[in-house]
Amino acid sequence: MSTQVAPADATRGRILLAALQLFATKGYQSTSIADILQRAEAHSGSLYHFFPTKQDLLLAVLESYRDGIGPMLLAPAWQGISDPIERVFALLGAYRRALESTQCTYGCPIGSLALELHEPDPAVRELLAANFRGWVGHVRACFEAARERLPRGQDPEQLAVFALTTMEGAVMQSRTHRSLAAFDASVAALRDYLQRLEADARGEGS
Amino acid sequence: MSTQVAPADATRGRILLAALQLFATKGYQSTSIADILQRAEAHSGSLYHFFPTKQDLLLAVLESYRDGIGPMLLAPAWQGISDPIERVFALLGAYRRALESTQCTYGCPIGSLALELHEPDPAVRELLAANFRGWVGHVRACFEAARERLPRGQDPEQLAVFALTTMEGAVMQSRTHRSLAAFDASVAALRDYLQRLEADARGEGS
Repeated sequence: MSTQVAPADATRGRILLAALQLFATKGYQSTSIADILQRAEAHSGSLYHFFPTKQDLLLAVLESYRDGIGPMLLAPAWQGISDPIERVFALLGAYRRALESTQCTYGCPIGSLALELHEPDPAVRELLAANFRGWVGHVRACFEAARERLPRGQDPEQLAVFALTTMEGAVMQSRTHRSLAAFDASVAALRDYLQRLEADARGEGS
Repeated sequence: MSTQVAPADATRGRILLAALQLFATKGYQSTSIADILQRAEAHSGSLYHFFPTKQDLLLAVLESYRDGIGPMLLAPAWQGISDPIERVFALLGAYRRALESTQCTYGCPIGSLALELHEPDPAVRELLAANFRGWVGHVRACFEAARERLPRGQDPEQLAVFALTTMEGAVMQSRTHRSLAAFDASVAALRDYLQRLEADARGEGS
């Protein structure tokens, strides 16, 4: 248990966490600097010291999502699960729980920012892309680990991109309908596809 | 050829079209009333006469997307194509062309609004949902028309929701990466899934 956090770092951390939470729940444009200061219980001088512009804060939020994929997202979702294909569905299950625990108001923060920001600055777009690449890279590694259970020539990168497509499109629809039905239908279709691929690799047909 | 459009209707139409285009290219929050007036070449009195609030304009834009799915989206995409499963891929092909012709800056306007508006008014959310239901309904009819080519018990609604999931998730990634690769990978995976379902229904295995 570390209590050795320097006060300046603690303030920076509070501001960053407040921005992360507000961008995720209200959106980037709708979040004001005043909202962030109030939530972080910080003064504007501290904020501008660490983050001269609102975009600097957005970049730091996107970096923390990128760096948090392993410890914050995958580690809890994959705890106790070693089967690589089940890990993919356990990850999708984590998004289902996020929808469920928010009465389906949850949106993937990266996906929401990727569509909210219509003309993102190149540095912002690159960090959004880096988040997608990180997610896809970890899921591709799952499909690579299950390579002998998939038909020869099946591209693990394509499957990983398709898994991210499934999560993002399914969260969007469930959020809009305020119902898990579209999420569950999409994940069931992806599961059916994977089972057919596995049956094919076993030589059973689908 | 009708030249009998009343001037008031023409003004309302210009304002609506300007709002539709600006919400699609800049987003809802980033579009100001002044932007809309400038693009529509209209006076604020006309705008407030037809649309007392910015949200009234958003509702009218969402109604025009909902009513335009057939004539504006499906009719051009499906011209000359009668095979119901090919119609699904022709519809996805229309989104690919939208990405291609905009150097992958295109975003589905409904999907973008669905994620940009974090706490939409119930009337707005219902119209976003109605747009998704309309799209899914037309695509479900395609899968219903191809029912004998699919395995018994395969749910056409589930496949249609999954097709929308694929489009939305794939557009989001391609837009973010400024590359067609993620869109093409996702549609190729959906195509592979459909081909395996058809092979299964023919009794060939996948």
